[in-house]
Amino acid sequence: MQNAMDIPRLEIIGITGLPEIRPGDRLGKMFVEAAQAQGTPLDDHDVLVVAQKAVSKAEGRFVDLRTVKPKAHALQLAERSGKDARLIQLVLLETRHILKLDPDRGLIIGETRHGFVCANAGIDASNVPGEDTVLLLPEDPDASAARIREEAMAEEDVRALGVVVSDTFGRAFREGHTDVALGVAGFRAIVDYRGMRDAVGKELRVTQMAMADEIAGAAEMVAGKANGIPAVIVRGLKLAEAKTDAKELLRDRKNDLFR
Amino acid sequence: MQNAMDIPRLEIIGITGLPEIRPGDRLGKMFVEAAQAQGTPLDDHDVLVVAQKAVSKAEGRFVDLRTVKPKAHALQLAERSGKDARLIQLVLLETRHILKLDPDRGLIIGETRHGFVCANAGIDASNVPGEDTVLLLPEDPDASAARIREEAMAEEDVRALGVVVSDTFGRAFREGHTDVALGVAGFRAIVDYRGMRDAVGKELRVTQMAMADEIAGAAEMVAGKANGIPAVIVRGLKLAEAKTDAKELLRDRKNDLFR
Repeated sequence: MQNAMDIPRLEIIGITGLPEIRPGDRLGKMFVEAAQAQGTPLDDHDVLVVAQKAVSKAEGRFVDLRTVKPKAHALQLAERSGKDARLIQLVLLETRHILKLDPDRGLIIGETRHGFVCANAGIDASNVPGEDTVLLLPEDPDASAARIREEAMAEEDVRALGVVVSDTFGRAFREGHTDVALGVAGFRAIVDYRGMRDAVGKELRVTQMAMADEIAGAAEMVAGKANGIPAVIVRGLKLAEAKTDAKELLRDRKNDLFR
Repeated sequence: MQNAMDIPRLEIIGITGLPEIRPGDRLGKMFVEAAQAQGTPLDDHDVLVVAQKAVSKAEGRFVDLRTVKPKAHALQLAERSGKDARLIQLVLLETRHILKLDPDRGLIIGETRHGFVCANAGIDASNVPGEDTVLLLPEDPDASAARIREEAMAEEDVRALGVVVSDTFGRAFREGHTDVALGVAGFRAIVDYRGMRDAVGKELRVTQMAMADEIAGAAEMVAGKANGIPAVIVRGLKLAEAKTDAKELLRDRKNDLFR
């Protein structure tokens, strides 16, 4: 039998026992304490994956739809799709370019003010209390990730902690959603193999892996949609510490064959 | 401290010690034996994720480029991009629709004969021995997954084994590649939450998660690009056994806003 240390292995551990997140909550501290309480304290090189919804709630990104006044385009789309005109107005406000529009479904695929390409500007009503209340994406998810990282590292003596703020996006060409990284702190969102050669000396076909997105997707399998687990530990990656953000995951419009 | 059994948790375990895969190899048997040998035998409800490259090699999907005769379009693209005209001809042969073409880079984003949208029909030269040898995708990756599953379950007494055949694809709008599922056996590729309600009684915004793609991406983090690990165990998902395939991950052309 091989030495167990030589087997590459990851562990993905949900952090349980957290209360409903409220505006002003210091998430980094809360997750450290909850991880300790369940007997899985954070360790060196862990990546802490935090659901966007928890971050948005802690940052008070709630909008009361009764304060939103829909304009002509939103009213028109609402009539055609049967959706809430105030919500459509809010989506349009949070969108800096519309890529695709399905008026019958009231579906707007656009680029958010951050640069994320997603449906309906990532605005979400599910798991948000209040009939007329919806939740926006964090103002700056990279800054959110960096702040959570600082809070966590102030609370627990760990080296090279990574943090990902994740959200659930659809994709072109493929059915089903996956979680991706909106914010990253502490490690490179993309792992770069450029210039590396394979075992037979040829250049690698694929040179850049979206590590932060794969981390987010892996964490989603533990957090699930209905489990109420806002944070997950991904353990075993041993990523190098780096100053970075999730913006490197966003393809420049000029270089995107799909626009 | 919470009962450790109540903490949702996944383990992702690379299978090491495998030889170079050759045509005719019975992968399911090989992976079972290698997993046993390293002290991590397959267990009930494990998902075995197998790299497309290993599957294609076992299925003998090698093409000698010296047998490929490029036609006018391929010659033209080769001249403009500086790429191998024979390889471009092969890509065109394996592509049933071209979606996007970057002639200067010789990059063809197309739909393969299986229905996968990817670059250059998924044809790969890296980690393939021989100057003029490239590797095609498996003929039918779902059938490959089903066969590997049968071989593995004949060898090891496990219930509800899942198998994913994974490959590394680029995406629209986002930089970096992630692994996705080309073939699936033993569980539903998509987890369906339609009709479910959240903790506050609202309908869920996201209703279909591409579980098999998240599994493939998670496994990639352990297999890596240069590690030479052709198979990975994802443990802890407890997915329901189902007759299924990866075709449900492919968005119908008519329903795709991005075409």
